[in-house]
Amino acid sequence: MSLLVVGSVAFDEIETPFGKTDRILGGAGTFISLAASSLTDNINVVSVVGSDFPESYLKLFKDHGVNIDGVQIIQGEKSFFWAGKYHNDMNTRDTLVTELNVLANFNPVVPEAYKDCKYLMLGNLTPSVQKQVIEQLPNRPRLIAMDTMNYWMNSCWDDLMEVIGMVDVLIINDEEARQMSKEYSLVKAAQKILTLGPKYLIIKKGEHGALLFDKNNVFFAPALPLEDVFDPTGAGDTFAGGFIGYLAETDNISFDNMKNAIIYGSAMASFAVQKFGTEAIIGLSKEQIDERLQLFVDLVQFDISLK
Amino acid sequence: MSLLVVGSVAFDEIETPFGKTDRILGGAGTFISLAASSLTDNINVVSVVGSDFPESYLKLFKDHGVNIDGVQIIQGEKSFFWAGKYHNDMNTRDTLVTELNVLANFNPVVPEAYKDCKYLMLGNLTPSVQKQVIEQLPNRPRLIAMDTMNYWMNSCWDDLMEVIGMVDVLIINDEEARQMSKEYSLVKAAQKILTLGPKYLIIKKGEHGALLFDKNNVFFAPALPLEDVFDPTGAGDTFAGGFIGYLAETDNISFDNMKNAIIYGSAMASFAVQKFGTEAIIGLSKEQIDERLQLFVDLVQFDISLK
Repeated sequence: MSLLVVGSVAFDEIETPFGKTDRILGGAGTFISLAASSLTDNINVVSVVGSDFPESYLKLFKDHGVNIDGVQIIQGEKSFFWAGKYHNDMNTRDTLVTELNVLANFNPVVPEAYKDCKYLMLGNLTPSVQKQVIEQLPNRPRLIAMDTMNYWMNSCWDDLMEVIGMVDVLIINDEEARQMSKEYSLVKAAQKILTLGPKYLIIKKGEHGALLFDKNNVFFAPALPLEDVFDPTGAGDTFAGGFIGYLAETDNISFDNMKNAIIYGSAMASFAVQKFGTEAIIGLSKEQIDERLQLFVDLVQFDISLK
Repeated sequence: MSLLVVGSVAFDEIETPFGKTDRILGGAGTFISLAASSLTDNINVVSVVGSDFPESYLKLFKDHGVNIDGVQIIQGEKSFFWAGKYHNDMNTRDTLVTELNVLANFNPVVPEAYKDCKYLMLGNLTPSVQKQVIEQLPNRPRLIAMDTMNYWMNSCWDDLMEVIGMVDVLIINDEEARQMSKEYSLVKAAQKILTLGPKYLIIKKGEHGALLFDKNNVFFAPALPLEDVFDPTGAGDTFAGGFIGYLAETDNISFDNMKNAIIYGSAMASFAVQKFGTEAIIGLSKEQIDERLQLFVDLVQFDISLK
């Protein structure tokens, strides 16, 4: 089952109460594809970097079985760069630098070999870019999921609504769901957002877990209670990567299987926050992941008898 | 299995974005005992009210099988009264009035007939009062659970630590756990608090659910996602009442059974917030409660295959 991932491949510079990094590997496309690669093969990435992007990072993708033929390398230009600093509670952060660089004029090109993809994950990007990708696919994928952010709600609402109308699963956080729906209650927010096109809505609540809605059902996955959250950067994208990777690998898009996919995404995100950047999600063994999944089982499963 | 509940029986006056009440029935002892009465019999309450407390409210307890012989009625004095106003997000509130009245000099007296209790739930009260109750029991109950609040941490830390050292289960909210432990991480907070005496710690996170810890295990129960939270007053006490009622009825204090007890408490709390005061938790049928418990099962159960 081929999975197409579209999203930024970039540099991050991160400061947390625990320390500070240099420019390290980041970007939504990076976290999504690496997280998905823990589970499934045949992952193709469409993205763009500058000629400053190191060969070692490109090799990292290949070493994880992620195809990056669709990552354009723009000579003489610089890769997308984000720098941020987390506050003591790790729930809030200040963006210190955002340099769009190559992303400013990103024209996504889906290689021929990618076009038969069955699963498509659109990372957070300009809605018109997300739309361009969908329009390059001759056959609609079995499932299209997308992430977005409040920035696009403020700057290009109509474009955003158009692409949201084209996807199956929308993945946003609680603040974004409230802004999009103008409802404080997440249940009401979900009801409204599900009228915009997507059949499924995932609302991420950070350390408070994630909710999956369709018109008739709701499922809740907790975040794993951790002693320390070291670096939340990329946790949401890692979650999305685990989610879509699980669906692609199992090729089952029932609500029940989406529950498992969300648990899998939550497990991957629980690794992500334990080290800087992608460090904690690369090279995970099946045993390590199964052990983490078992923690989720133990965390929420109960056996109450009902008549 | 007799259950002894100690806690305020009082008047509340509540304003929310949805409306405003007159003086209605409230108090921790009220919510705890009424919630527990949905499941178990043989509930005895120790508390105090003034002669302004209406007979109809006393009758309400009796009608729910709750014994109130231990509720002192102080002639010529007034019952405890709290008035509060919730903000639009329903997560924050302003206390408008707190009149301790009869609670100011509350001298709890445990009637002889209550002294063989097997389960004891100490609602939020002055720690020295909670301690007085424990000391009146000739045999230690099988399980003692207690609630408290930040106010007592600030005003009588040593008394609080003494009574915490005498109980099995401490039930507090996330802010209180952080203040008590001086740790932001709830996992670290729990580890510290469990060294103070209790074998079990429940951290309530309001709309974000509740965590149960012992030294080796952690369990998470979500709050039910609701369209509207109408009035959160008493939700925490209702949760505690459902929890202790479930344990008393099943007479099983294993960690696994505590998981069920927390789900039961969460289900009762999900009713509590849907109407003002105690209105939504009185007169619930077994069918209504089982239906609600089924929503919790559907909300979190998943079936992922692990090697």
